[in-house]
Amino acid sequence: MLNFTYENPTQIVFGRGTVAQVGRLIPRDRTILMTYGGGSIKRNGVYDQVMKALKGRPVLEFGGIEPNPSYETLMKALPRARREGVDFLLSVGGGSVLDGTKFIAAAIDYEGEEPWDILAKGAPVKSAVPLGCVLTLPATGSEMNRNAVISRRSTKEKLVFTSRHTLPKFAVLDPTTTFSLPPKQTANGIVDAFVHVLEQYLTYDVNAPLQDRQAEAILRTLVEEGPKVMKKPKDYDARANVMWCATQALNGLLSCGVPGDWATHQIGHELTAFYGVDHAESLAIAYPAVMRHQRKEKAKKLRQYGERVWGIREGSRDERIEAAIEKTEEFFRSLGVKTRLKDYGIAKGLERIGARFQARGASLGERGNIGPREVGEILTLCRK
Amino acid sequence: MLNFTYENPTQIVFGRGTVAQVGRLIPRDRTILMTYGGGSIKRNGVYDQVMKALKGRPVLEFGGIEPNPSYETLMKALPRARREGVDFLLSVGGGSVLDGTKFIAAAIDYEGEEPWDILAKGAPVKSAVPLGCVLTLPATGSEMNRNAVISRRSTKEKLVFTSRHTLPKFAVLDPTTTFSLPPKQTANGIVDAFVHVLEQYLTYDVNAPLQDRQAEAILRTLVEEGPKVMKKPKDYDARANVMWCATQALNGLLSCGVPGDWATHQIGHELTAFYGVDHAESLAIAYPAVMRHQRKEKAKKLRQYGERVWGIREGSRDERIEAAIEKTEEFFRSLGVKTRLKDYGIAKGLERIGARFQARGASLGERGNIGPREVGEILTLCRK
Repeated sequence: MLNFTYENPTQIVFGRGTVAQVGRLIPRDRTILMTYGGGSIKRNGVYDQVMKALKGRPVLEFGGIEPNPSYETLMKALPRARREGVDFLLSVGGGSVLDGTKFIAAAIDYEGEEPWDILAKGAPVKSAVPLGCVLTLPATGSEMNRNAVISRRSTKEKLVFTSRHTLPKFAVLDPTTTFSLPPKQTANGIVDAFVHVLEQYLTYDVNAPLQDRQAEAILRTLVEEGPKVMKKPKDYDARANVMWCATQALNGLLSCGVPGDWATHQIGHELTAFYGVDHAESLAIAYPAVMRHQRKEKAKKLRQYGERVWGIREGSRDERIEAAIEKTEEFFRSLGVKTRLKDYGIAKGLERIGARFQARGASLGERGNIGPREVGEILTLCRK
Repeated sequence: MLNFTYENPTQIVFGRGTVAQVGRLIPRDRTILMTYGGGSIKRNGVYDQVMKALKGRPVLEFGGIEPNPSYETLMKALPRARREGVDFLLSVGGGSVLDGTKFIAAAIDYEGEEPWDILAKGAPVKSAVPLGCVLTLPATGSEMNRNAVISRRSTKEKLVFTSRHTLPKFAVLDPTTTFSLPPKQTANGIVDAFVHVLEQYLTYDVNAPLQDRQAEAILRTLVEEGPKVMKKPKDYDARANVMWCATQALNGLLSCGVPGDWATHQIGHELTAFYGVDHAESLAIAYPAVMRHQRKEKAKKLRQYGERVWGIREGSRDERIEAAIEKTEEFFRSLGVKTRLKDYGIAKGLERIGARFQARGASLGERGNIGPREVGEILTLCRK
């Protein structure tokens, strides 16, 4: 096991009817900016539940945060938030709304000229407006971590920042708020959580059997519960199980003492930035190709994954690895998420992605052995 | 799944050489009281590592905290700590030292006349001196939870209190500090962690498959890694794996959204209070008897436990349950921890335990169906 530090003070409030607790979770004296997305929370009743919980308190609103939240949109929140002295942000929605809210929280306090520098230049986030969330889409794990992914439309960039100041103070997770999700978003969320686990698990072995099993626990639960929520969107227990899996998938616990991969996320972010595919779709395309490309380096864990998650015990070592990769692709497709570039009509301009990593001097993966050339090879595997 | 809240801000600093980080973990301006036990930290070098890390800072010492830390001993720390203005406590040792330190932290700030009321009468802990720990014995999980168990010799009582103010700010977990543990303490720690998991897992089913698998992950890892540390006390990875298991076994995560049992702990505390058996010994005696007594109520989970942790797939339902219980007892005994009252020469006066629960009006277990009469029946099973 590698040395590590772990600290995660987010308060989780989980279960049916918990949105009503938002009032007690935000200090009484705060001026609140409530952020949300395209308005689904007004149709499914969550907006009304939040407003009821915050009745009589100063609440401003900022709606319209889109999937892959854009710098251009988010910057519009700043003047009013600063002018009105907003000192608490409440994100009501999925991971995109929450990531966007984290950026607003950091940008309000940012003293430099151009808040994009937080993403593009790693400008330090010295403070941020405190924030909490009501999560309505289990997927990104953003509700219990420090990360946010922000896109810039004008430059087709999609970048990540991380700060302890943007860790949510609380996350309200009421599975009933996910009953009305469109099937595509539900499926995307399952794929997203699944790949988050794989990025921290399917690496090289460092003799950390507890972390391995904690990862497998989430993977197996998603394999079992995922199809249930697709079939019965109002199955409370299945929704609750998927929701808790997604939070646990990326709250820092799985990565304690083990190497992390994240090549798929980095390649996937570029697919989204250039071609507009959903985040989960980009992962479903890139992950199987990364597994195939890195099958030697990841051989031991691929066999362990195949056996423990998919019950694959027959065949040669190589056959078991191939079976594990195929099972993964089948799982994504069974949820309705396609796994090849051609499924999305993407064929041209892929060389821009390798070129971008070349310019950044990036080497990806847990071994740092995936350079621009290897990214090209992986993208070729994504086309097949 | 049941509704729940979860919040655990303790910072974990894990790995080889991490004791040196104690200096940065305690704010510079604090007057520190360093607490410890019988002096093993002076023999194994941990005391010197801590003192080096805190060089030049005001550090007072309070040693001699015994296993099952006593109210009588701990109260001796108060006058000096108050007089010298101690405003940070650093526990260096195992769970007993840490539990004792939590009590000192709460007692320093306690305004009532008799700090024992915190334990005996549930007097509220309104504040406590902040504390951190260097853990040298993986077992109780106290390093990442709010609980402390304190004994009073004069009345033969052993009671628990819980307060958010006594959650450690940080826990330094360096597996090399456990290399020199006596085999008995190592074994006790494994049994303690194992039973902590069972108390939160082996209950009635509420359709929480992730929590089940997170519990099974720890149990299986302890079954694998436990014998390794018994055989090779300086196996770093095995020590690290056991240490991380013990912390994860009782940090609140496993109990999210599921019922808790704890009958074994309550009965075990009385066995320790009346007969002086070690905490882990008391659990190894009581848990198999509780499983046997509650085999109908726990049937579904007992079979799941047997299959997933011990690979028991053959036999009738009842045979599989009996096999799972026997495997558990065998595991404890294989570590050198005996599982019956007669192994410890305990035969007389057991009726005092039932009488004590009668006086408290207690009903134990996840169903609250274990009253004084059932405690008597369980103790009879412990004798066989």
